[in-house]
Amino acid sequence: MSRIDARLKELGLVLPEPFTLPPGVRLPFALVNVRGNRAFISGHGPQNDDGSLAGPFGRLGDTVTVEEGYALARKTGLSMLASLKRELGDLDRISGWAKLFGMVNSAPDFDQQPMVINGCSDLILEIFGSETGRHSRSAVGMAALPFGGIAVEIEGEVLID
Amino acid sequence: MSRIDARLKELGLVLPEPFTLPPGVRLPFALVNVRGNRAFISGHGPQNDDGSLAGPFGRLGDTVTVEEGYALARKTGLSMLASLKRELGDLDRISGWAKLFGMVNSAPDFDQQPMVINGCSDLILEIFGSETGRHSRSAVGMAALPFGGIAVEIEGEVLID
Amino acid sequence: MSRIDARLKELGLVLPEPFTLPPGVRLPFALVNVRGNRAFISGHGPQNDDGSLAGPFGRLGDTVTVEEGYALARKTGLSMLASLKRELGDLDRISGWAKLFGMVNSAPDFDQQPMVINGCSDLILEIFGSETGRHSRSAVGMAALPFGGIAVEIEGEVLID
Repeated sequence: MSRIDARLKELGLVLPEPFTLPPGVRLPFALVNVRGNRAFISGHGPQNDDGSLAGPFGRLGDTVTVEEGYALARKTGLSMLASLKRELGDLDRISGWAKLFGMVNSAPDFDQQPMVINGCSDLILEIFGSETGRHSRSAVGMAALPFGGIAVEIEGEVLID
Repeated sequence: MSRIDARLKELGLVLPEPFTLPPGVRLPFALVNVRGNRAFISGHGPQNDDGSLAGPFGRLGDTVTVEEGYALARKTGLSMLASLKRELGDLDRISGWAKLFGMVNSAPDFDQQPMVINGCSDLILEIFGSETGRHSRSAVGMAALPFGGIAVEIEGEVLID
Repeated sequence: MSRIDARLKELGLVLPEPFTLPPGVRLPFALVNVRGNRAFISGHGPQNDDGSLAGPFGRLGDTVTVEEGYALARKTGLSMLASLKRELGDLDRISGWAKLFGMVNSAPDFDQQPMVINGCSDLILEIFGSETGRHSRSAVGMAALPFGGIAVEIEGEVLID
């Protein structure tokens, strides 16, 4: 078992199944695109274990709480890892996280995007540790997000061996 | 004739003239910035063949339809290619697309950003094929975009020889 | 004295103290993350010299003017440089700017994001010159930004020796 797989097991974490496309939706891009030693991670949303998108849907500062947002950002991190594992074969190939760009579906007065996206940052650091997991980040408020209004979407980049 | 120029001709596609700056606007940055083997593409909007910005302007989910948005994202892709050609000299130098970041001027309840940005993804794949054209992507909803409210803005990165 | 430090002095520019975290806020990521010859700059906001966040807070097109926004984007550039200096030790290590992603807290009808983010672009070019300072850029409208609604947030990437 790879080191990161062992760590996921130790933490009791399960990576979700592939994203189930809603009817009529076509996504003609790569969820993870490897170019040389870089892997670009497309915008991911929170998923349930079966691959369906996880709610609550809607806006932070409106119907979704910061605590729910934190949990959704953590689930989004697991979605990203699931896509990385499918593309890379082995998450041990990740030599370092480069960046996360955290997008929070936000009511105009909501300002706690960092506390929401911490759910993903904390996950990455728990799994990969402070050196490999170290990343830059923004956490900002979007006017709207896809698929019925997922509350959180995150994209990023990692370096690979 | 370069391979990509031939492909553009075959598809009947025309790259727009350089962007005509609106009066009083100063843009002190590079539309494409080459650093080593990477070319960073600034945020582009949809352009008409003469270089002026293409409408309809405004928000998806409000006055602009998904079909119009798709066409605008396709035009935005052509704008990006025009800037790349001016900077690189030859689009055949593009060895691989890395990423697109697709921004859709969105009413708060609009959630079909992916169907809009598909206009750009489809264009890239038609022209460059599934290997070189392969890219990661996000497609998300912005509160506002520049220049009278362009409906779509896209930035990205490509790798070059 | 390093070349860039001398240039900052010549221009009368002062880099702000480290960001003072508001009570209860935890930011588990790196303000600048170096991976190989790349330095990823997390989303930064405008700071006063003492490290506190600089106002006015709120949205452009609402309570914050373009002139104020320009000054805030310039301050945000200084915040980014302060973090880069703390991480890199010497700003002369920056061999080239790659990109800026400029986020403007925007009322729905505000469309002058480029004129706001010019405050940062102009600063980078004044300090680093047209070759090293050359960068790609987007300047777009966000629905909401953190920390009481900072008016401007910018992230970016530089290449280093």
